[in-house]
Amino acid sequence: MTTRLDNSRVIRPATGSAISAKSWLTEAPLRMLMNNLHPDVAEAPHELVVYGGIGRAARDWESYDRIVETLKRLEGDETLLIQSGKPVGVFRTHENAPRVLLANSNLVPAWANWEHFHELDRKGLMMYGQMTAGSWIYIGSQGIVQGTYETFVEMGRQHYGGDLSGRWLLTAGLGGMGGAQPLAAVMAGASCLAIECQPSRIEMRLRTGYLDRQAASLDEAIAMIEASHAQGKPVSVGLLGNAAELLPEVVRRGIRPDLLTDQTSAHDPVNGYLPAGWSLDQWFSKRESDPSAVATAAKASMAVHVRAMLDLQAAGVPTTDYGNNIRQMAKDEGVENAFDFPGFVPAYVRPLFCRGIGPFRWVALSGDPEDIYRTDAKVKELLPDNAHLHNWLDMARARIQFQGLPARICWVGLGDRHRLGLAFNEMVASGELKAPVVIGRDHLDSGSVASPNRETEAMRDGSDAVSDWPLLNALLNTASGATWVSLHHGGGVGMGYSQHSGMVIVADGTPEAAKRLERVLWNDPGTGVMRHADAGYDIARACAVEKGLDLPGILG
Amino acid sequence: MTTRLDNSRVIRPATGSAISAKSWLTEAPLRMLMNNLHPDVAEAPHELVVYGGIGRAARDWESYDRIVETLKRLEGDETLLIQSGKPVGVFRTHENAPRVLLANSNLVPAWANWEHFHELDRKGLMMYGQMTAGSWIYIGSQGIVQGTYETFVEMGRQHYGGDLSGRWLLTAGLGGMGGAQPLAAVMAGASCLAIECQPSRIEMRLRTGYLDRQAASLDEAIAMIEASHAQGKPVSVGLLGNAAELLPEVVRRGIRPDLLTDQTSAHDPVNGYLPAGWSLDQWFSKRESDPSAVATAAKASMAVHVRAMLDLQAAGVPTTDYGNNIRQMAKDEGVENAFDFPGFVPAYVRPLFCRGIGPFRWVALSGDPEDIYRTDAKVKELLPDNAHLHNWLDMARARIQFQGLPARICWVGLGDRHRLGLAFNEMVASGELKAPVVIGRDHLDSGSVASPNRETEAMRDGSDAVSDWPLLNALLNTASGATWVSLHHGGGVGMGYSQHSGMVIVADGTPEAAKRLERVLWNDPGTGVMRHADAGYDIARACAVEKGLDLPGILG
Ligand SMILES: NC(=O)c1ccc[n+]([C@@H]2O[C@H](COP(=O)([O-])OP(=O)(O)OC[C@H]3O[C@@H](n4cnc5c(N)ncnc54)[C@H](O)[C@@H]3O)[C@@H](O)[C@H]2O)c1
Ligand SMILES: NC(=O)c1ccc[n+]([C@@H]2O[C@H](COP(=O)([O-])OP(=O)(O)OC[C@H]3O[C@@H](n4cnc5c(N)ncnc54)[C@H](O)[C@@H]3O)[C@@H](O)[C@H]2O)c1
Repeated sequence: MTTRLDNSRVIRPATGSAISAKSWLTEAPLRMLMNNLHPDVAEAPHELVVYGGIGRAARDWESYDRIVETLKRLEGDETLLIQSGKPVGVFRTHENAPRVLLANSNLVPAWANWEHFHELDRKGLMMYGQMTAGSWIYIGSQGIVQGTYETFVEMGRQHYGGDLSGRWLLTAGLGGMGGAQPLAAVMAGASCLAIECQPSRIEMRLRTGYLDRQAASLDEAIAMIEASHAQGKPVSVGLLGNAAELLPEVVRRGIRPDLLTDQTSAHDPVNGYLPAGWSLDQWFSKRESDPSAVATAAKASMAVHVRAMLDLQAAGVPTTDYGNNIRQMAKDEGVENAFDFPGFVPAYVRPLFCRGIGPFRWVALSGDPEDIYRTDAKVKELLPDNAHLHNWLDMARARIQFQGLPARICWVGLGDRHRLGLAFNEMVASGELKAPVVIGRDHLDSGSVASPNRETEAMRDGSDAVSDWPLLNALLNTASGATWVSLHHGGGVGMGYSQHSGMVIVADGTPEAAKRLERVLWNDPGTGVMRHADAGYDIARACAVEKGLDLPGILG
Repeated sequence: MTTRLDNSRVIRPATGSAISAKSWLTEAPLRMLMNNLHPDVAEAPHELVVYGGIGRAARDWESYDRIVETLKRLEGDETLLIQSGKPVGVFRTHENAPRVLLANSNLVPAWANWEHFHELDRKGLMMYGQMTAGSWIYIGSQGIVQGTYETFVEMGRQHYGGDLSGRWLLTAGLGGMGGAQPLAAVMAGASCLAIECQPSRIEMRLRTGYLDRQAASLDEAIAMIEASHAQGKPVSVGLLGNAAELLPEVVRRGIRPDLLTDQTSAHDPVNGYLPAGWSLDQWFSKRESDPSAVATAAKASMAVHVRAMLDLQAAGVPTTDYGNNIRQMAKDEGVENAFDFPGFVPAYVRPLFCRGIGPFRWVALSGDPEDIYRTDAKVKELLPDNAHLHNWLDMARARIQFQGLPARICWVGLGDRHRLGLAFNEMVASGELKAPVVIGRDHLDSGSVASPNRETEAMRDGSDAVSDWPLLNALLNTASGATWVSLHHGGGVGMGYSQHSGMVIVADGTPEAAKRLERVLWNDPGTGVMRHADAGYDIARACAVEKGLDLPGILG
């Protein structure tokens, strides 16, 4: 039988410049697999769970041990195949081929549901790879902060000429993902008023420095924001309360935030959304005793909440759905125009994707934070005019703790990614960095995902569900010489709802690596620009032309 | 607007040793794309339809022209990306990378159905690639003849002590694939009665020598078979009619064939199956004006058809599904026991797949039949003890007319494929062959497909729907240096029911090609042995051990 839970196992990657694999190209996946299971990184490392519910790094402990063993002996012209977290084969390839190829959680569509997945998972035949869990490039919560920051910055660009100073965002929900909002807003230059119904959530965000202050009332919160703006500084303020009660009050009183969104867990009406007028105790006990009554009351409150959002939108406040499905819930309750405000991807992330901009990241295999600080400086040097990026790097350094191997995430696009990769490779070659770095990204990126309820929602040409694109992305990254390439199913939105691919490449300081980096870090975001150009986005077509992409059937 | 139908276009590949692309590595996909649309190869070349209902080689004529243009200019370190038959990008890769990467008809699972596909297809965003249509390695009916022949021979072995003389097979469908049945049956020693609703299909099979005779009625067909058996010879007879009408008649009249199967295009209820009681004209016009009405009527008829097959099975006739998904369609229509008769793969083909044996094929780019005859001789020389194979080669040469570029198919397995590839490459190098050859296979192969109603039906460990395997196969072939690699969805059994990958590699006589051939033609069937070894098949595990495969998590 396979072992999934082993409380005795504590995994930490090696650091420093001595390696136990035969080269850095195999030492890198070894360290990154282990880093995904580092106690400071993984949510449930004893069960091999990295993040996102049951997203695993390896199928079971036997598979984990066998992967480690195999990576240590893998030659420079061999490739290891991983099938849903199990090492199934080693084949002869060549130096410019990936050292590891992974396929996780993929199911033939008609069987692509949680029931069938769990059946196979229980039999020991599968594993849920999420996105970066099964593809060994998760770096902790820094990723969420950065994604939210980029979204807020883009909101500022679209609605306030790129300057959020003196502006404030109204939102609700300070949970696992939503808790990144106040920090990201302040980093983006905006104040944030976050309504949260649970005191414990507010306290946790205050403690970890993600939230600046707490207010006792709406008036006090507004006063805090105004006072801070008077001093020319943004502030984040938590307000204990129920969004379904407070938002209508905001409308009634004529208070006008500059940006509006929501990250309550509206997608789950039983467990995720406190109905208006209910106490927390009432909520917790009724979830057990009468869940459908909770759902009914919660959905009625969501309708009230969305109506208030629509009212504020009508009053001129840029309003967006942050992927929690609250519009659908309200629509089910009879709010016909619930979808009048857009989802955050089509509204704010897609313009970035159109230029191949996405969650680019890198990790210092040395384990030395100084290596990351040196790369931070290099990024600033190479992108001297990107003020918001410089700001992100400074704020990230000041406010975000590393988890596991030191890492940095930075949304950059086509034309910049490969320049950074080449520069980092030179820094490894010159000894400026103490060891090689790996460069990768989330699967939630410009060219690497088809997910019609999230990343590819409402594509201009209706091609939301076309998954040829992430498959081509994986094939091209393999052909271009990435160090490991993965193809996953069901990440983010669950079984049946997404297909996506991952890519990681090692900068080991060699000239051969430089050639591969140049190709891979150009081609990978290039496929994103291509995909969006094909869908008819002007920004993407302009970017493709500007960067000289060769897109025969698209640009003609 | 895109042009799908152009009656003025007649495509034929160049032959001979002068090329219009920059190397044989790009001339090869050029000729093979054109060969797929050769009037003697494609079922509906003016519509770019190669075989299998609406399996296309390119999305539309604009895409076709653009692919041709791009292949002609493609450099030796560039890779062309094809998204559902449209050339979307050219990216810099390297010499050992594929020159073309294709992804056809792939949809996120929750949207992976014919309705959504057709919606996208009508918008010009998609194309159905079938298996070898969209991946440019269809070689006409010969491609399926040997597989069908091997299946019929194995049926004879299992049910009639290896002797099919005096026996007859009842089937329907004389299309691109199904048209191979009468010839394969006769080669295997059995007679064949094939019901086909389109006169043109019967005429084409008579003309190409795949079908011996045509009957005007069921009575006449039976009489022809009996007369031939009286003379000790098998005969194949085509009968114009609708299987959904004639099969119930066979049951009613107590006629009992010795073997029963079906190859109508049941996987595609809109385009592939004539509903009972409909005229052809009615069918063709309704497909355009009211496709969903066609699908409804076709599926109802399939239920009638399958009920008749079940009745014959109950009466003792060995009955098998030949991979067209007709059982699923009937089950959807309420035929609860539709899966009582087995698919042909678990019944007859899987033991071959366990040893990596599958539809290996090659094509003489010279256009000269002598090149194929020379390779035939080489195969016999290198596999001197395989009498069955020698017999096949002799019969194939005697009875199979080449369609388009001369080609040969030969089911060989792990350990033999790369030896043949290397030998052919030497023959190109020495000038024994007049031009390079391409070597490929169907997607229906040992390691390249997940299709729970066909190739992976009833896998021993229940992993039928796990599609990690074909994805790994495509990634590994890309990493190993195949010349073009493809990932498709829905081939054979229709949208939602399969994922599969294709591979073609050029033997241009160079030492570099030799290295790639050795890797690719070993690794590709190797993944098939691996996949079956993981599923617990003893034959596959024994083969893996014998051939020295390195399968860490499987063999330990
Ligand atoms: N599409 C995306 O990429 C994306 C990204 C982030 C979050 N999300 C979505 O955002 C939502 C939040 O995610 P999470 O991980 O933070 O969830 P979570 O459950 O950890 O947090 C939700 C928070 O909302 C609070 N809350 C519930 N009802 C409330 C009410 N009526 N008023 C005020 N506060 C209330 C809860 O107390 C909780 O702290 C989810 O629906 C998630 O799917 C989507
Ligand atoms: N598993 C395999 O290896 C395998 C091999 C070959 C074919 N197939 C499957 O078999 C089917 C046939 O393939 P094809 O390429 O020959 O398709 P095709 O569309 O070229 O041919 C189907 C033929 O069936 C005829 N037909 C349709 N409805 C009929 C009816 N009611 N009665 C009589 N004839 C009817 C059509 O006129 C056509 O000639 C497909 O579903 C294919 O996927 C599977």
